[in-house]
Amino acid sequence: MKRDEYNRFRDKAIEMFEKANIILTIEEKDNIEVADFGLNKVEETGLQLITYVNTELVCAKELVLLPNQTCPEHKHPKRAFDDGKEETFRCRYGKVYLYVEGEETKERATQPPSDDREYYTVFNEITLTPGEQYTIYPNTLHWFKAGDEGAVVSEFSTKSTDEEDIFTDPRINRIPEVE
Amino acid sequence: MKRDEYNRFRDKAIEMFEKANIILTIEEKDNIEVADFGLNKVEETGLQLITYVNTELVCAKELVLLPNQTCPEHKHPKRAFDDGKEETFRCRYGKVYLYVEGEETKERATQPPSDDREYYTVFNEITLTPGEQYTIYPNTLHWFKAGDEGAVVSEFSTKSTDEEDIFTDPRINRIPEVE
Repeated sequence: MKRDEYNRFRDKAIEMFEKANIILTIEEKDNIEVADFGLNKVEETGLQLITYVNTELVCAKELVLLPNQTCPEHKHPKRAFDDGKEETFRCRYGKVYLYVEGEETKERATQPPSDDREYYTVFNEITLTPGEQYTIYPNTLHWFKAGDEGAVVSEFSTKSTDEEDIFTDPRINRIPEVE
Repeated sequence: MKRDEYNRFRDKAIEMFEKANIILTIEEKDNIEVADFGLNKVEETGLQLITYVNTELVCAKELVLLPNQTCPEHKHPKRAFDDGKEETFRCRYGKVYLYVEGEETKERATQPPSDDREYYTVFNEITLTPGEQYTIYPNTLHWFKAGDEGAVVSEFSTKSTDEEDIFTDPRINRIPEVE
């Protein structure tokens, strides 16, 4: 991702945090992560986030999804030190559609990015509006997409090791590079 | 604690959550915990809280301190399954003065409840305003007190087992009973 594109999405994330009344330090705002997953279409498939804390045991992040933006399907596999990351998503602003393993929901509210349908395989839909939350246990496939207003989501989890996430789409590179 | 007193403090907590723009479900509002620590002076020594999630590994809570209210000194000792609870406090609204082990801060911003000074032994002062946070590792004595506006604080931690907390004040009973 080019520096000016990074800055543009970082600034959009800051706007969303303001709408959600989430207060960040100046340093946190400067260090918002913009993940394009190596797909080079961050407006469609991407995620903006702040990691508040990530110790050996506990991680807390604040995620921003821009309107209709998708975080692509992945899971958190067994690691050397545990069975894989466990995470709870709590919606703070907007609406997020979360898709997990289980019975496919008919007439879903939204769909995966149209060019990438083959890389989405789980379709049990959970809708989260502000105050609602859902816990994803280790090694469970999931993906999520914001509604028309975007979404801000708190994540409470065990230690985060993003580089170990397994994405269904083999083209994906989780760790962003800003040129 | 009497039911009407519980309701009064629960309603004060709801007001504080509204000031902090923290959105709760109706069920969460109905189940706000009011801890008087068995001291029967909750306005001075007490805590209001919501537990969002508490799995075997991860816990997230939202704490409310009313103006100048104190959460008394305690620590989270080694447990059967770990070295003790680890927790990060992130201030969302107001101001909280956190006191931990270490060099005593001179000219501190606030003091323990005046009748209970003997049960407070750590005085290294950390001030948290919105967006600021601090991590407390297991088995570390700490207490905290809000400023004049009160405070709302997010807590990200390992599994919570409040009944195992060790308070410096032997009169304290952590688990509240509403009559």
